[in-house]
Amino acid sequence: MKTYKKKNLPLAEIRRHLEPGPIVLVTSSWKQQTNIMTMGWHTVMEFTPSLVGCVIASGNHSFEMIRKSGECVINIPTVELVDQIVGIGNCSGAEVDKFDRFGLTAAKAEKVSAPLITECFANLECCLFDKSLVGKYNYFIFEVVKAHVATTPKYPATVHYTGDGVFKVSDSTISRRSKFLPQNL
Amino acid sequence: MKTYKKKNLPLAEIRRHLEPGPIVLVTSSWKQQTNIMTMGWHTVMEFTPSLVGCVIASGNHSFEMIRKSGECVINIPTVELVDQIVGIGNCSGAEVDKFDRFGLTAAKAEKVSAPLITECFANLECCLFDKSLVGKYNYFIFEVVKAHVATTPKYPATVHYTGDGVFKVSDSTISRRSKFLPQNL
Repeated sequence: MKTYKKKNLPLAEIRRHLEPGPIVLVTSSWKQQTNIMTMGWHTVMEFTPSLVGCVIASGNHSFEMIRKSGECVINIPTVELVDQIVGIGNCSGAEVDKFDRFGLTAAKAEKVSAPLITECFANLECCLFDKSLVGKYNYFIFEVVKAHVATTPKYPATVHYTGDGVFKVSDSTISRRSKFLPQNL
Repeated sequence: MKTYKKKNLPLAEIRRHLEPGPIVLVTSSWKQQTNIMTMGWHTVMEFTPSLVGCVIASGNHSFEMIRKSGECVINIPTVELVDQIVGIGNCSGAEVDKFDRFGLTAAKAEKVSAPLITECFANLECCLFDKSLVGKYNYFIFEVVKAHVATTPKYPATVHYTGDGVFKVSDSTISRRSKFLPQNL
């Protein structure tokens, strides 16, 4: 599988990759176990601190691992990993070692115990910032504390889930930079 | 501009269009005034009730209109409207009638006072469901109470904002339906 040379991205700039709404792979670690889940319900909430809100359904094996550890890594895969994305979302970490099953490589994170997925083009290390809506909506607000992002391509082709087994693919870009007010860039 | 034949979409199915993370145009109405804003920070939160969470920065003219009325419409534009999307995001409703300036047509909604944008392929009428995080994060949780969606195309080409004046375009799809567990479809 493709690998990437990565560098630290300033935390206020991670919206470049999350705001477009790609499906992501969330890794967690708790009591010597690791897991991966597929997640589509997330949004950027603030630049600084760098906040991301997301829904992690309580039925997921990852739910308690993330709630108890207060940490995770949001890994952003490209379209080349679509079969891993689907496979990971259709089995349970209670029964399967997903790194092993799907041929993915766990790398050590710098600030959290959850692992990075080497084959993803971006890895965002996250700490739980606000759990006030976890009970009511399974809604976690994380602070991104470290961002490892591939240096190229600048805009990788990502997949965006629509339900029903179908993904949209975003593999082109349009710039309208010249039409923006400077303060809005 | 292109117009659409629309039908009601069951509310639990609106994730098909929001989960991919498109930029959206949010309309509001308050005291005989209407407005439109461009928004990129949103996520689906629940199927039933049909919940959507989103950040509306308090500096926007729309912020108080939506907070006070407790209503809005989330309109989803396609790539053909990219110049309207950018224009709307780069002027203020305090100074400009955006429907007039950008040649868009306001249609009457069924359950809220905010108008539908006829030229958008989907219009989601929303009522404020939970305002507990509005003060701290400008985060509104809306319930979609009525969804008007174009009957064709099933997966329109939408734009996804990355910051810096650049949008990704999702104009193709991949199905992996056969690889999903039935309960996950």
